[in-house]
Amino acid sequence: MDIFENISPFDYRYYLRNNTVKKDISNYLSEKALIKFMLEVELTLVKALHQEGLCPKSAVTETSEAINKVKAEDVYLEEDRIKHNVRALVNCIRKHVSDKTMPYIHFAATSHDIICTAESLRYKLFTENVLIPKLKEFASTLIKLALREKKTVQIGRTHGQHAVPITFGFSLSEYISRFSKTIISIEESAKNLRGKMAGAVGAYNAQSLFVQNPVMFEKNMMEMLDLKPSDHSTQIIEPEYIQDYVYNVIKSFGILANLSDDMRQLQRSEIGEVAEVFGSAQVGSSTMPHKRNPIQFENVKSMWKQIMPRMTTLFLDQISEHQRDLTNSASSRFIPEIIAGYYISVTKLNGVLSRLVIDNENMIRNFEDGADRIIAEPLYIMLASQSHPDAHEYVRKLTLKSQKENRCLHELLMADESLKPYINKLSGEQLEILKDPKRYIGLSVKKTETICDHWIRELKLEV
Amino acid sequence: MDIFENISPFDYRYYLRNNTVKKDISNYLSEKALIKFMLEVELTLVKALHQEGLCPKSAVTETSEAINKVKAEDVYLEEDRIKHNVRALVNCIRKHVSDKTMPYIHFAATSHDIICTAESLRYKLFTENVLIPKLKEFASTLIKLALREKKTVQIGRTHGQHAVPITFGFSLSEYISRFSKTIISIEESAKNLRGKMAGAVGAYNAQSLFVQNPVMFEKNMMEMLDLKPSDHSTQIIEPEYIQDYVYNVIKSFGILANLSDDMRQLQRSEIGEVAEVFGSAQVGSSTMPHKRNPIQFENVKSMWKQIMPRMTTLFLDQISEHQRDLTNSASSRFIPEIIAGYYISVTKLNGVLSRLVIDNENMIRNFEDGADRIIAEPLYIMLASQSHPDAHEYVRKLTLKSQKENRCLHELLMADESLKPYINKLSGEQLEILKDPKRYIGLSVKKTETICDHWIRELKLEV
Amino acid sequence: MDIFENISPFDYRYYLRNNTVKKDISNYLSEKALIKFMLEVELTLVKALHQEGLCPKSAVTETSEAINKVKAEDVYLEEDRIKHNVRALVNCIRKHVSDKTMPYIHFAATSHDIICTAESLRYKLFTENVLIPKLKEFASTLIKLALREKKTVQIGRTHGQHAVPITFGFSLSEYISRFSKTIISIEESAKNLRGKMAGAVGAYNAQSLFVQNPVMFEKNMMEMLDLKPSDHSTQIIEPEYIQDYVYNVIKSFGILANLSDDMRQLQRSEIGEVAEVFGSAQVGSSTMPHKRNPIQFENVKSMWKQIMPRMTTLFLDQISEHQRDLTNSASSRFIPEIIAGYYISVTKLNGVLSRLVIDNENMIRNFEDGADRIIAEPLYIMLASQSHPDAHEYVRKLTLKSQKENRCLHELLMADESLKPYINKLSGEQLEILKDPKRYIGLSVKKTETICDHWIRELKLEV
Amino acid sequence: MDIFENISPFDYRYYLRNNTVKKDISNYLSEKALIKFMLEVELTLVKALHQEGLCPKSAVTETSEAINKVKAEDVYLEEDRIKHNVRALVNCIRKHVSDKTMPYIHFAATSHDIICTAESLRYKLFTENVLIPKLKEFASTLIKLALREKKTVQIGRTHGQHAVPITFGFSLSEYISRFSKTIISIEESAKNLRGKMAGAVGAYNAQSLFVQNPVMFEKNMMEMLDLKPSDHSTQIIEPEYIQDYVYNVIKSFGILANLSDDMRQLQRSEIGEVAEVFGSAQVGSSTMPHKRNPIQFENVKSMWKQIMPRMTTLFLDQISEHQRDLTNSASSRFIPEIIAGYYISVTKLNGVLSRLVIDNENMIRNFEDGADRIIAEPLYIMLASQSHPDAHEYVRKLTLKSQKENRCLHELLMADESLKPYINKLSGEQLEILKDPKRYIGLSVKKTETICDHWIRELKLEV
Repeated sequence: MDIFENISPFDYRYYLRNNTVKKDISNYLSEKALIKFMLEVELTLVKALHQEGLCPKSAVTETSEAINKVKAEDVYLEEDRIKHNVRALVNCIRKHVSDKTMPYIHFAATSHDIICTAESLRYKLFTENVLIPKLKEFASTLIKLALREKKTVQIGRTHGQHAVPITFGFSLSEYISRFSKTIISIEESAKNLRGKMAGAVGAYNAQSLFVQNPVMFEKNMMEMLDLKPSDHSTQIIEPEYIQDYVYNVIKSFGILANLSDDMRQLQRSEIGEVAEVFGSAQVGSSTMPHKRNPIQFENVKSMWKQIMPRMTTLFLDQISEHQRDLTNSASSRFIPEIIAGYYISVTKLNGVLSRLVIDNENMIRNFEDGADRIIAEPLYIMLASQSHPDAHEYVRKLTLKSQKENRCLHELLMADESLKPYINKLSGEQLEILKDPKRYIGLSVKKTETICDHWIRELKLEV
Repeated sequence: MDIFENISPFDYRYYLRNNTVKKDISNYLSEKALIKFMLEVELTLVKALHQEGLCPKSAVTETSEAINKVKAEDVYLEEDRIKHNVRALVNCIRKHVSDKTMPYIHFAATSHDIICTAESLRYKLFTENVLIPKLKEFASTLIKLALREKKTVQIGRTHGQHAVPITFGFSLSEYISRFSKTIISIEESAKNLRGKMAGAVGAYNAQSLFVQNPVMFEKNMMEMLDLKPSDHSTQIIEPEYIQDYVYNVIKSFGILANLSDDMRQLQRSEIGEVAEVFGSAQVGSSTMPHKRNPIQFENVKSMWKQIMPRMTTLFLDQISEHQRDLTNSASSRFIPEIIAGYYISVTKLNGVLSRLVIDNENMIRNFEDGADRIIAEPLYIMLASQSHPDAHEYVRKLTLKSQKENRCLHELLMADESLKPYINKLSGEQLEILKDPKRYIGLSVKKTETICDHWIRELKLEV
Repeated sequence: MDIFENISPFDYRYYLRNNTVKKDISNYLSEKALIKFMLEVELTLVKALHQEGLCPKSAVTETSEAINKVKAEDVYLEEDRIKHNVRALVNCIRKHVSDKTMPYIHFAATSHDIICTAESLRYKLFTENVLIPKLKEFASTLIKLALREKKTVQIGRTHGQHAVPITFGFSLSEYISRFSKTIISIEESAKNLRGKMAGAVGAYNAQSLFVQNPVMFEKNMMEMLDLKPSDHSTQIIEPEYIQDYVYNVIKSFGILANLSDDMRQLQRSEIGEVAEVFGSAQVGSSTMPHKRNPIQFENVKSMWKQIMPRMTTLFLDQISEHQRDLTNSASSRFIPEIIAGYYISVTKLNGVLSRLVIDNENMIRNFEDGADRIIAEPLYIMLASQSHPDAHEYVRKLTLKSQKENRCLHELLMADESLKPYINKLSGEQLEILKDPKRYIGLSVKKTETICDHWIRELKLEV
Repeated sequence: MDIFENISPFDYRYYLRNNTVKKDISNYLSEKALIKFMLEVELTLVKALHQEGLCPKSAVTETSEAINKVKAEDVYLEEDRIKHNVRALVNCIRKHVSDKTMPYIHFAATSHDIICTAESLRYKLFTENVLIPKLKEFASTLIKLALREKKTVQIGRTHGQHAVPITFGFSLSEYISRFSKTIISIEESAKNLRGKMAGAVGAYNAQSLFVQNPVMFEKNMMEMLDLKPSDHSTQIIEPEYIQDYVYNVIKSFGILANLSDDMRQLQRSEIGEVAEVFGSAQVGSSTMPHKRNPIQFENVKSMWKQIMPRMTTLFLDQISEHQRDLTNSASSRFIPEIIAGYYISVTKLNGVLSRLVIDNENMIRNFEDGADRIIAEPLYIMLASQSHPDAHEYVRKLTLKSQKENRCLHELLMADESLKPYINKLSGEQLEILKDPKRYIGLSVKKTETICDHWIRELKLEV
């Protein structure tokens, strides 16, 4: 089998050929992994039956050995024959146990007792073991960068226009604040994924025939897997648990897309404030050998454009008729792609931001270009604070004049007789700011520190 | 102005002509309301300035009186002139205060200090004062219905096929469990909406000129409005607060759409298990006078189809360049429609479910039609429990035989010699179930009670 | 490489394990296929250069041989080294040609001259060679079924309620009419996919250095591939060509989803008008051996729920800054999944509809259940035609009475003295219809024939 | 009624307060307009009945007069009473006609014969009379600008990086080519909107009772409205006609969003190549009096973000069970907002582009900044054309060297001994380009002219 026979970009390009992420994804998000987790759930059922006194210890031992013998391939071949994937899995286990154990395999369970539980389990474990550590690593990368650059003055931009000054660290602290919160919400929603052992329509019909307290039986069995049961089940668990999880993932991805866009824009030829590091053998363009393109940031944005719309599928999959129709079956098989796309993008961004080149000279140059006009804001507010009755409008006109006459705003205001009475009342620090707008960065430094400190503590990061 | 000049179905049909919801929506979600809340925020800023010692008490008094004189119309006319909506609002207030108070209006604030805060405020208050009480009312309606029908046997359906029995109350308890959780999450995400007073790029640049501790100043001002400040701001607050809120609303709406679909389907001519109550003058069809269509349920589903895709806008609005571009401005003006669409649909569903007609005869009739085949499941599990080595396959074939020979499954199994040894070992209760599948409802009744009890307590409902 | 290491459901389940579609998809939609088509475009460029007199015949011959030696794997390994996929491809070809030919490989081309053209080429050829024949086969299947069942009376349903009669063939003719139009639009939009050889920003900068008429050069080269050039290019072709194609595919898929929903519903236990054929070894449910679930129809609906939202990506990919940013690169790599998902679903539906079981008895039974009320519509219109001034309201009340008193509507109307004068004027055929509503099928038969005939001719089908 | 009671931004802000578009939208897209068109369809039905010999001329005359007396308000009040909108409309007409005419109002029609036809009619006429002329006006604006700026050299940008030169006119010609095609497709899909008079389930059941050839009757009636009938109908027309129309509108909107993004970016402080004209009283920012924000372009992008996701609703509305469920009813009432949002944005863009300020100095300045590196592309291709065996790699390294040593690329290459043999063979024009990259604009001018000429002819524009 040649991976280039695949049609999914994950399978031929972004996942299987990406050694950094391959193993982690394979162990949780591949089909192989799903079958492994389903076998685990079937075994746990036998364990629970044994704990309930419904089957002998030998059934547990046999099943435990049997599931190690079942390969994904076997299950698929059996499914080809009988056209039912979980029954195929069950048959495969049964082949490896004694007649005595046979009846306890999948006993009183419905397919989705197994599938729902296995899916929740793998997403939960992937999140705990792989995703969260990576997200924290990325948060650390951002925090390190922000703290290093907390005093690097940069012009703040709104509408793509120079506004008032900030620091580069402060601009990153936005992403630290937004992104870190999604680490928490991804973690919590993953912990909140549920299993079930409630039967064909969720009313524990079959379980009730044999088990004293099927609700407690389900709870105990789920505890063995470190899961909680769905508050209510039909044939399937409530769809909102996984929907919340995917929502948090895609929401977090949106923040990365925003960050990537900012970085792409700061990398524009005219701005040049940051740059991706380029390998020495790396080709920027097949035809323009001089190009240094922000391809990693572009890739993250592009992946987001592909993944984000899939949230709609989760909204559609909320609707399942009565105690369930199967129209969420094929669609939910694609959820691993969503998670993988996100995980790969975080990994990519972590790499590129760890080695991000900051061009201080360009930051200063860009700042200086509009520095004079920056003081319009503090000036108008200072005038207002001195009870100028129409400060905003007055400064607006002064700015127009400055542009029209191509004169420096600071010069104009100092020469303006009508402003004298107000200017004279300003404090020394205020006058300094009017002279040197680089001082007009407000709390950029302190706010950066506060946010970084908060999240270092909250996420227990080592920075 | 004729409301039929409007193009929005809310404005000509679903909201302004709906007396049940009109006033509530108008007070929070109309443009008039937004302007009222913006004025409120401007006043609160003056109050905070006063508390900080930056302006006299008279400024508060004057502003307080002034904002009552400003009409939405005035603000729009001023905007027509100067092309800036918040500056227009500020000008309108300033017209009504003395020269001395004038400088303190909007002092050191940026437009989005006001807009973001006012938006959060109105959504939060709408949620607390209007939406949550309505959602709880609807939860009560569902719970009352579920408890009343907790023992009403209904055939459980998966894939649109008769599966195993439940009760109608149990089927409703699914929606109680799913929907009630969204009451909590809507409430929490509304409480988590934030304000800001952090200036043009979020770094408190202007505030820092005058205020000792601008972060504390912002916090205090927000507390006056019972809000918290955004953890980090650029020109705007972090977009994820409102995104979470809208997500929870749309997620909850999806549950209503699912419920409506179920009800529509149960109202099918061939099923007829439930029906909407019809007014005596009501026309079902312009051409088929005999029709009784599930138009309320259809309307809710249709509204959901219109509203749900708008979640995508919220994902797109996560992306704002640098310290903000304005491409989320027009789009965020449509958020009230999302909330109104949801609220109107809850109100509608609450009405129709309060008067839902349950047709017990049809429930029984439908149940009986497939009752014989229902026992296939308990039979196979009972056989398995008695160590039948191939129970599932054996019963599958027996079912096929039953269909082919058009004979009763219960009869076939009782006549089957090879099954005798297993059947003989079954308990009395088990044998009863094979005879009367109506007993095979598992924990339907108990689970219904558990869920209802839980949510009555959790939501402090009166039922 | 184990296909169960894959995470895409296509790669481990729906495509590579589906022998009916595997080869066709592999040849056009796999990564292997893309590289093959890119090599083909590079060769065509050399051919065009030769035709223009810019390189010797030997360059063509060498390149032609070289591209057969390049494997997908090689290209990827080279890309690993230099981090540029098209330059990697070029390097791979260059390895297999003489120094003399080397400069002509990729001469004056930019990466996306190759990629855009190769993508268009493969989608166009897949459509012509594989997709359209399959769509026509499915149209034939539908037409055969519709013609066979054109006289099979079925109750028409609106709002899930019995309305007035149609035939089953007529209900299928809806899908024939809607689906067949999309065959045409898919075919046309595929034929309208474009290539380019216009250089890095679309202005033929490089080409202009060497070629007399670069526009004509591009046109000639595209003609060799049976493509037309994009009307305008930047670095890439206009995005709307592929967007139109994908739109038509997804639109067509929506029709299949609608058809599948109808069939699922008609397969409900209470309705039972149609059924999927089941294999004799097939398992319906892992726990309910008696179930016959509409899993194929459910699968198609589910696949649609997964694929449809991806249209949003195409809308997002319309936006590319200036002469292009790369944020459509990863995202457009997923387009083959859209096409594959659609193609696989058509194949699936074609199979299940070829063997669809129609249950005439149930159709009659369902029809008879509401037959009496059906005549409400013709009755009211007949009365109106005889100038009854309030026919609709009168019949509406008569229907209510019929329900309330549980009496037959036909009986009531015949006994109604006030209606006598109108009834007496009705024609014999009209009276027959009031007696036997099965006659009230309007033009169901004729319309079915008209639509089938039209599309047999239009699509040149053999039925 | 105060328009600020409305919640839709269209109704309180973008449409009713926009004098340029108000009347046009009101006449076609308001609820008032819909009712007017429904009355028109009801009249046309009476006309068609008369033509068929089924009612006297007086019925036509009376109905014609009656419909002028019916107000939207009346219909809504009647609907409040009987809970059915079309029956309400019918009752309103009937009030104004004689008993003799009464039976012919809505004779044998179903509600959606009227609604579907009226909807198609209004969208078709809005498109023909209002939208297309406006789209052509905008195309003219773009073309005038492109032709004026066809020789204005601008640096082409890919990945936000300077690539190779184009002209500003050429960059606009991209949008002319893409946008103009959508004028055609919007026009065609509007012309293809359909009506119906096929009854409750589309089989002409009722019509067949009275009319010889109901298909011909429908066709004739539709011709009176300059419409064609739906190829097939259920209770409603095929959903794909309106879906195609909306798709073309939203696709066209995507092009405007792209154009707006480009313009926003070119308006960045650091780039400054274009600017929106600002009114002299206009306020850029409530706090930063110096700002000149691209608010029109931002508004168009934002409106697109709000409107584009609504396409998903159209995909969902393809699915309607059997001969129709009503779940597309509320949702399709929102289609006018889609069209209005698009129309308003075109109007806005037309205004701002008519007065766009081009800053030639900044275009030159930006170009010069990277001019030296631009020649990397032509250089490598020229070397390749002279059989340099590794031109791309050689130039890539030369560029790196140029950056590292901060030396001019042109100087480096002229000093490079190993390149001499190749350089010597270059033509005079080629050497000129290496010296002056402004000459390296390829066919920018000619292509701009070709595209503009083509669309002036095709759309019959006056420019």
